[in-house]
Amino acid sequence: MINLALAGIGEVALEHHVPAINSSSNWRLAATFSRKGFISGVDAYHDFSALLRSRDDIEAVSLCQPPKPRLQYAIAALQNNRHVMLEKPTGATISECLLLKRMAQQNNLCLFATWHSRKAHMVENARNWLADKKLKCLHIDWREDVRRWHDGQEWIWQPGGFGVFDPGINALSIVTYILPDPIYVTSARLEVPENRSTPIAAALTFGHPHNASATASFDWREQGEQSWSIEADTDAGLLVLNNGGSELFINGEKIDTAAKADTISSDAAMNTLGNEYRRLYERFYHLIQHKEIDMDLAPLQLVADAVLLGSRKTVEAFHY
Amino acid sequence: MINLALAGIGEVALEHHVPAINSSSNWRLAATFSRKGFISGVDAYHDFSALLRSRDDIEAVSLCQPPKPRLQYAIAALQNNRHVMLEKPTGATISECLLLKRMAQQNNLCLFATWHSRKAHMVENARNWLADKKLKCLHIDWREDVRRWHDGQEWIWQPGGFGVFDPGINALSIVTYILPDPIYVTSARLEVPENRSTPIAAALTFGHPHNASATASFDWREQGEQSWSIEADTDAGLLVLNNGGSELFINGEKIDTAAKADTISSDAAMNTLGNEYRRLYERFYHLIQHKEIDMDLAPLQLVADAVLLGSRKTVEAFHY
Repeated sequence: MINLALAGIGEVALEHHVPAINSSSNWRLAATFSRKGFISGVDAYHDFSALLRSRDDIEAVSLCQPPKPRLQYAIAALQNNRHVMLEKPTGATISECLLLKRMAQQNNLCLFATWHSRKAHMVENARNWLADKKLKCLHIDWREDVRRWHDGQEWIWQPGGFGVFDPGINALSIVTYILPDPIYVTSARLEVPENRSTPIAAALTFGHPHNASATASFDWREQGEQSWSIEADTDAGLLVLNNGGSELFINGEKIDTAAKADTISSDAAMNTLGNEYRRLYERFYHLIQHKEIDMDLAPLQLVADAVLLGSRKTVEAFHY
Repeated sequence: MINLALAGIGEVALEHHVPAINSSSNWRLAATFSRKGFISGVDAYHDFSALLRSRDDIEAVSLCQPPKPRLQYAIAALQNNRHVMLEKPTGATISECLLLKRMAQQNNLCLFATWHSRKAHMVENARNWLADKKLKCLHIDWREDVRRWHDGQEWIWQPGGFGVFDPGINALSIVTYILPDPIYVTSARLEVPENRSTPIAAALTFGHPHNASATASFDWREQGEQSWSIEADTDAGLLVLNNGGSELFINGEKIDTAAKADTISSDAAMNTLGNEYRRLYERFYHLIQHKEIDMDLAPLQLVADAVLLGSRKTVEAFHY
């Protein structure tokens, strides 16, 4: 059993990380670090240096803060010889992620840049099916109501806060995993509220090595039916991945492997997103056992490229 | 002698590439491709496919177009089995550069992402001196008059056109080469004219593995003395690299190795910038002989990171 510290005790930590950690016999939640948050019955630190200094029994830390403030804790953890797991998006910049990777390599530590959506129920099936197909057309449709899913969150609107790319990067993490060929951004149109720094909507066009057409539409203003879907038209028909990777349709037929893939789905705590995080912690444990680094920056790179290349249109102010 | 095609016949091609190619006994300028431009006495193509189809004698192409339109020609050249040299900045996005690298590897071709400022006269000396010093403080000061150096250029102001990062990336190409440790962007402030898409000025702050303080100031509105300087304060004193890498001062003393480093500096055509390009073509020749790829994306990555992380301030309209 590995003693773990969880840092950044907010909604994501409480709803997803804690149940996943508690459900596993590999992990023991030995401490938390947070400015304000805590978990009843777990040693709470409000000074990260103190945690690192006084708790030699803690081998690994899982960092759930927003990417910009998170960096300093990742550096401190690696400097103090702890394995590190990072929430998505991996960092506020690519260069800082490469620095962390270098530090982990030099100190022989495990570093895991997580993409929870890649662990969604049907993502592996989608990847397997697409592996030998010829892609003709891809469309990502990621439309949700920011007030419903990010109510009151301010960091997402600040420089380095990603805006609609915060959910959009989940789609990109799936697409870069399930497609056998890499895509790249060829154009982007970002819509930025006049009182905010980050986009509320983005339309992307991608290039593809075999000239498939590929596009993405991210929108935080959807008050009707929420959509987290990826459609891939191929020489063998249409693949549709719905609900953030949890439902798969091939040529209109629903593929159902629920019984096989989620053996503990009867446990109420293990909802679909819960399983994503349970799989992340399984993977982190495996990486530590094998002293490996798992940091795929392709999703973050596509976002950085879209912002670098994109045109910006100012749209009406956004208030919660 | 290798037959070369030069694509994108504008100012940079005519002033820097052509003299460098003509001064070398390794290269023969066998054709040009450009929408409008041509070079007297050299076969001119206005259709790139026709050039690739009809000129099997041409082993390598050097692409001088702006990064966004350049990509399609790089892909076509690699698909048609030609070695490729790319002007800076390497691409409009990082992902497309990684695609080109993958294609070059798969086709066993040479790919050279050039950074001409790295070949400036005193850059190697600066790198050698810094190799065993402890950096305390770094400042990049890159201030020039855009009307003087980019008069009438429109692509630099369009999405994907880089704005003041077009010269600024030259500074970043030097810094990422001469510093023994990698830096990463921690904050950026971009000033964007209200009628343009790209910044006219940018102030960057960097992080450094040993906590050196590092900053950059890029400004296109400098009508007084132009500045392309890098100052690095270290435990062994102050290094100053002036004039885009062509002059070096260490603790106030000018280091002069002109006679040794630039043996053909007596040739009027071989001005300082001319030597940068002469060295690039020497390097390209070497890479082809050894079937190597040279693509360091660190300077482009820092720019992408600055744009991703940066705050934007709208400033007064810019007109030439």
